Amino acid sequence: MDIERCVLGVDFGTDSVRALVVNATDGGEISAGTAPFPRWRDGRFCEPASNRFRQHPRDYIEAMERAVRMALEPLTTDERAAVAGIGVDATGSTPCAVDASGVPLALLPEFADDPDAMFLLWKDHTAVDEAAAINDAARRSPTDYTRYVGGVYSSEWFWAKILHVLRVSPKVRAAAFSWVEQSDWIPALLTGVRRAADIRRNRCAAGHKGAWNAGWGGLPPESFWTQVDPLLAGVRDRVAAETATSDRTVGGLSPEWAERFGLAPGIPVAAGIIDAHAGAVGSGIRERTLLRIMGTSTCDIMVVDPAVIGDRTIPGICGQVDGSVVPGLVGLEAGQSGFGDVYDWFRRLLLWPIAHLGGDVADFEKKILPALSDAAAALSPDATLPIALDWLNGRRTPFADQRLTGAVAGLSLGTDAPRLFRSLVEGTAFGARAIMELFLGEGIAIDEVIAVGGIPDRNPFVMQVQSDVMGVPIRVVKSAQPCALGAAVCASVASGIHQTVRDAQERMASPARATYAPDPALRSFYDGRYRSYLALGEAAERRIR
Amino acid sequence: MDIERCVLGVDFGTDSVRALVVNATDGGEISAGTAPFPRWRDGRFCEPASNRFRQHPRDYIEAMERAVRMALEPLTTDERAAVAGIGVDATGSTPCAVDASGVPLALLPEFADDPDAMFLLWKDHTAVDEAAAINDAARRSPTDYTRYVGGVYSSEWFWAKILHVLRVSPKVRAAAFSWVEQSDWIPALLTGVRRAADIRRNRCAAGHKGAWNAGWGGLPPESFWTQVDPLLAGVRDRVAAETATSDRTVGGLSPEWAERFGLAPGIPVAAGIIDAHAGAVGSGIRERTLLRIMGTSTCDIMVVDPAVIGDRTIPGICGQVDGSVVPGLVGLEAGQSGFGDVYDWFRRLLLWPIAHLGGDVADFEKKILPALSDAAAALSPDATLPIALDWLNGRRTPFADQRLTGAVAGLSLGTDAPRLFRSLVEGTAFGARAIMELFLGEGIAIDEVIAVGGIPDRNPFVMQVQSDVMGVPIRVVKSAQPCALGAAVCASVASGIHQTVRDAQERMASPARATYAPDPALRSFYDGRYRSYLALGEAAERRIR
Repeated sequence: MDIERCVLGVDFGTDSVRALVVNATDGGEISAGTAPFPRWRDGRFCEPASNRFRQHPRDYIEAMERAVRMALEPLTTDERAAVAGIGVDATGSTPCAVDASGVPLALLPEFADDPDAMFLLWKDHTAVDEAAAINDAARRSPTDYTRYVGGVYSSEWFWAKILHVLRVSPKVRAAAFSWVEQSDWIPALLTGVRRAADIRRNRCAAGHKGAWNAGWGGLPPESFWTQVDPLLAGVRDRVAAETATSDRTVGGLSPEWAERFGLAPGIPVAAGIIDAHAGAVGSGIRERTLLRIMGTSTCDIMVVDPAVIGDRTIPGICGQVDGSVVPGLVGLEAGQSGFGDVYDWFRRLLLWPIAHLGGDVADFEKKILPALSDAAAALSPDATLPIALDWLNGRRTPFADQRLTGAVAGLSLGTDAPRLFRSLVEGTAFGARAIMELFLGEGIAIDEVIAVGGIPDRNPFVMQVQSDVMGVPIRVVKSAQPCALGAAVCASVASGIHQTVRDAQERMASPARATYAPDPALRSFYDGRYRSYLALGEAAERRIR
Repeated sequence: MDIERCVLGVDFGTDSVRALVVNATDGGEISAGTAPFPRWRDGRFCEPASNRFRQHPRDYIEAMERAVRMALEPLTTDERAAVAGIGVDATGSTPCAVDASGVPLALLPEFADDPDAMFLLWKDHTAVDEAAAINDAARRSPTDYTRYVGGVYSSEWFWAKILHVLRVSPKVRAAAFSWVEQSDWIPALLTGVRRAADIRRNRCAAGHKGAWNAGWGGLPPESFWTQVDPLLAGVRDRVAAETATSDRTVGGLSPEWAERFGLAPGIPVAAGIIDAHAGAVGSGIRERTLLRIMGTSTCDIMVVDPAVIGDRTIPGICGQVDGSVVPGLVGLEAGQSGFGDVYDWFRRLLLWPIAHLGGDVADFEKKILPALSDAAAALSPDATLPIALDWLNGRRTPFADQRLTGAVAGLSLGTDAPRLFRSLVEGTAFGARAIMELFLGEGIAIDEVIAVGGIPDRNPFVMQVQSDVMGVPIRVVKSAQPCALGAAVCASVASGIHQTVRDAQERMASPARATYAPDPALRSFYDGRYRSYLALGEAAERRIR
């Protein structure tokens, strides 16, 4: 191990923190640690039925300390001294109110148990009305401030969540000096920031979730926000208009945290980045690559030379932010609202008799999808199979519409469970192809897909169908921690080991574990099936109009 | 028991013969017997994979004798002597080649094991090509000889099956003098007919399956059939152009069969009738009543005053024959290609894990539909439920098209098995409503539905949804043997006990066992859902065009 050149990536996921020590020369993963969020694990401060998901900042502090110490534990003192920088990625948008010192309110004794004083996790959906107010105002505004986020500001995002808390909690409203993203607060915490005004904002979260865009010189004007709701008055001016790409240093590791981790004080801490985008970096995203993070849903990311796009916005995607993934390139974000969730839906459907008439649910739960996948893989591609529309959780891309629903056509009495499952797998692949076709239609070429996440690791059948349907090779990354690896890549640039993220990726990004090549013999077959999928989608769109 | 006035109904089903002794004064069921077809039960002469279903005439002879003797056994000698007539219903179209003596060829030693010399059961689908040839010729003909059968001559019917055997079996072709329906051969057998030319044809089978119609003076001309295929030359002239309604006597019980049954020789035997139509008679069908025989599929029958229809044909139904059900009224036939089959499909789908990963399939098989029905019944009618199209086995009415397939729209991650099942139950009810609306659109009023069959007996939830969706009351008949009862009704008229079928029905037809009334509060809700169903159907029709 080259102890002169290693970096630490810290990845905040939904349930836990993963810390990864990485060799900055070759990307080798030296050691790792993971720690869950204890209060979150116990279900505290959440109400799933009303989609309220809050996380306590103490969970972040405690889990980060444990995970990093666990990762560093196998290292010698010399090796620890060789850790040259820290990169952090986190979920987003996950904002929290802070006081003038930049301290999340829930860390103050009087707010210790107040969910509105905590981080509003990315999947918290309590701000539906507030998102609608922002979208209404955007429709009335001469400048469409949603044009770089696909035309719809989401209830999952920064400003909607801030407004929601301002509306429901006079107590937080009175105490909040400003608001920060989780991916900004962690670097601020590690670098000992003591004033809210000094918290640096990362380009990725600000651009994709925080309404920031260089195109309109930073944030929409105060007048826009007060039109949304007068309660927002003054918030904008306390959220910095400047943003930092994730290859930049926001400060040195504070003596306090250097002590807690057992690292050298003052080593550079990089600006934050959203976890999915960090995963794209760690997986080696580059131009002409569609990076797909495939789990219950998918997040699809591309990077494009600004010259290709010019001043266009790509319609129908979820985000377009210069430098949000790789500095110097425009980051584009799209995704499918349901992917693995669609398979889980079918699993739950088939489990109903066992759950309600008796049987070992846990055992069947484990076995059903592998068995269905084997049976479905054994079927030859067949035009008599049903066609499924994958919008069971609405549609994110192209052209987000959460009112849309899934459908299955072409059912016959001979449609058994493997045939229906195969059509669902094809349907989710057609959804992926629709995203690819949207990019292609905008002149953004795609040579390959890089796949990350639970599904690519677990289900070769799903991956092969996807490659056949999309007609491009799919490389599955080897790293089990591409997000933490991406954060480490950022740290390697922030600490000066590498000059650019591209340089760092060439050395450090994860290689492929497996590659799926499309079967050219299936090309025209799936072209026809894809047209049927589009026709079914048109019928489903007519239903809601 | 009024031993002066009783009759025997003999019902040939797919698997067995049922014999029923009925009090002709009040329809009381005095005694019954059932006997299966022994060769059929053993799967002989059939190839399910190629849809070849043949029945040996000896099965009919042996099972009929056993069933009738079983039904008569509890009767005293005086009571047997009081059996005043016999009515017979049978499946259809189920034709067989006969020699000049009217003997089915399979009863001759040289044809005893030749499936092509046996009865081609209604569900035998070997004559697909031959049906296509008939339909082609009908398209080219100046007279559309399919206009009274919905515009499509089926591969299940008389002439297609005859042509199929003529094409594939030179041996049968050489030996066949003529061809008869099962529902004609049994009465001929019982009355001792010794010449094929003397076999009387019943209006019901001839009209619904045999291309007979008074509108073109009986059968299409010889020139039509030879245009279909020269092999058909001469067949028409050996199939009688005259038909008898099922209230007519075709002869007296022969001494041989009187002896075999233990009945008086010479008692009247009525002209045959197809089983479903006999069931309509036994269930008390009358004008403004939609009679639905509901099992795996449905057969929907109405009777209408000829003055209401005039010389119109009702487009989109499967059959329109004057006197086929109740003499003096026009019998109309429609149906759903899949009904209980749709529920069984869902059951099979949910059984997949148990069948493939281990578990007591038989136990789950028994319990799933009752449990799903209970859970689905507990759901309140809800616009967020999916909409299902019930065409999983194609569409029979309106406007038959076997290429059509089923579909489900409006699926979300929250769509669990009871919700999906409820949408399938609604979908089959919408299919029933589409048939009703077709009749209403032609000025044929419907005040109520009478339901017969396995589903009405087993599933109150399905029946209530159907009543709510159709907006009319549904009466479920009490008799477990409405077909045999209908045959007995025919016998009571043929033997002169009653003057007309209507008179006989008033005394003898089965009362209701249960009535389902539509909930008026759900009227507009289901009107809206029905429109969604129609829209989904239009989308499915676009798929095949």
